[in-house]
Amino acid sequence: MVKLITKTQQLKEERASEIGDVGFVPTMGNLHAGHIYLLEEALKVNDVVYFSIFVNPKQFGPNEDFDKYPRTIENDIALIGECEKKYPRKKVVLFSPEDVQEIFPQNSDTQISVQTLSTLIEGALRPGHFDGVATVVYRLFDLVKPKIAYFGLKDYQQYLVIRQMVKDLNIPLEIIGMPIIRDESGLALSSRNQYLTTEQKKNALILSQTLKKIKSVIDNKKSNIDQAKKEIEIILKDNNWNYIELRDAETLSEDISSSRKLTLLAVYQLGTTRLLDNLQMEIE
Amino acid sequence: MVKLITKTQQLKEERASEIGDVGFVPTMGNLHAGHIYLLEEALKVNDVVYFSIFVNPKQFGPNEDFDKYPRTIENDIALIGECEKKYPRKKVVLFSPEDVQEIFPQNSDTQISVQTLSTLIEGALRPGHFDGVATVVYRLFDLVKPKIAYFGLKDYQQYLVIRQMVKDLNIPLEIIGMPIIRDESGLALSSRNQYLTTEQKKNALILSQTLKKIKSVIDNKKSNIDQAKKEIEIILKDNNWNYIELRDAETLSEDISSSRKLTLLAVYQLGTTRLLDNLQMEIE
Repeated sequence: MVKLITKTQQLKEERASEIGDVGFVPTMGNLHAGHIYLLEEALKVNDVVYFSIFVNPKQFGPNEDFDKYPRTIENDIALIGECEKKYPRKKVVLFSPEDVQEIFPQNSDTQISVQTLSTLIEGALRPGHFDGVATVVYRLFDLVKPKIAYFGLKDYQQYLVIRQMVKDLNIPLEIIGMPIIRDESGLALSSRNQYLTTEQKKNALILSQTLKKIKSVIDNKKSNIDQAKKEIEIILKDNNWNYIELRDAETLSEDISSSRKLTLLAVYQLGTTRLLDNLQMEIE
Repeated sequence: MVKLITKTQQLKEERASEIGDVGFVPTMGNLHAGHIYLLEEALKVNDVVYFSIFVNPKQFGPNEDFDKYPRTIENDIALIGECEKKYPRKKVVLFSPEDVQEIFPQNSDTQISVQTLSTLIEGALRPGHFDGVATVVYRLFDLVKPKIAYFGLKDYQQYLVIRQMVKDLNIPLEIIGMPIIRDESGLALSSRNQYLTTEQKKNALILSQTLKKIKSVIDNKKSNIDQAKKEIEIILKDNNWNYIELRDAETLSEDISSSRKLTLLAVYQLGTTRLLDNLQMEIE
């Protein structure tokens, strides 16, 4: 039985009683195999896993999908419970605050902003988004005080933002980024995939396929980067692409002339649904 | 002998060796009796006092006085040493980083912003100033890990910003705001007073005198507030005033209709020098 906690005070008391290593998986719920992969990894490594479900209003823009973001707590609890059963000596604590004020009390006023990383690429299209992410993650880290926190690399820029915040603010924990989970067609799993019609789902395949193709053009060779950039330029003539960016995998800098690791970040938009994906690659 | 530390690594080692209570006085140096008052209070209460001198570039605007801000480290050390002598069983550790990178490493990128409080009044005139303050104070708190940190109430809005940050980020320490120290003329002590010419120093008296007068008009009575506001309006016709604001002492809200504690915040400008002062008052 998954232990469900909805109040911050109760969470603090529970946390104070833990003696083993605590892993943490923060999510916005509507769980899919990508989230369960994080949970499973956390259960393998830690004695207890705190798992949070909180649709954080601070990371949604005024015209974004906060209201319609899928909330499926009963199904989420069932999925967590199934996974927990596989690890009979471990415990999962599910923190799903009922009220935004459990996370951000009425008069709270402090924002954490990873300035450069948060304004690039996805951050430029969603002003304030990563500030909202950093602020809620700081708060959750402070409540859960995990030894290790797990994030999916599907949101690669988010992972970098959080890692930078943890470093700059000297928060005593380890961040682990877990590989993207894809469906059989190659589409990266995302709660927002369910916004897609059947037709859009077919069209969505172009996203993962294009990234794979660009990666194969580069083929780990610096000398192929210019060719890949030319191909990206041609691909971007299809207006459904918000962006395809080839960047330094650590800094997200555009200058990749001396980069050893690259990331290829892309958003393909179908209707109002923005699908994120990325691939990592090394340069010989 | 004051123990002087200039490297962050050295500071961490020193701090790790402390066993008693640690008090903390963060400053930008160029010490005067106001700073020494903080130090003395900290020495009375704590076993060890960490005292920092760091002219924080992040809290100066592009056209402000970062470069000409007075740096008088030798005199500062002498003043701290004199004070320390009075408390032979106590110890002062002076942290005066030589290089900005000791506080903000090259790739650090995270800013802390107390959003509402930082954009009001003084914050509206100095965009980013309080974000720079909050960010450096977080960093210093994390290094020094004090039990109590001391701030002068001369910078009242700064005190509120830091108090709010500590609350929101759940930083485990106590903030104490210490009363303003004034010279015999009533002028609040400030490192920036030395920018004043003899003539300007005479003119500066209007600042404390005006605040005192407005406070006496209010005379702790809600019914006198309208009259005080009218007088403020007349006084502000003298363009040397940047502002005189009568606000709720906790929130700095303009709506003081149900406030029990008020603050009167003002800046009087002489040449390029902005002189800050404030008074607190209670409403019966």
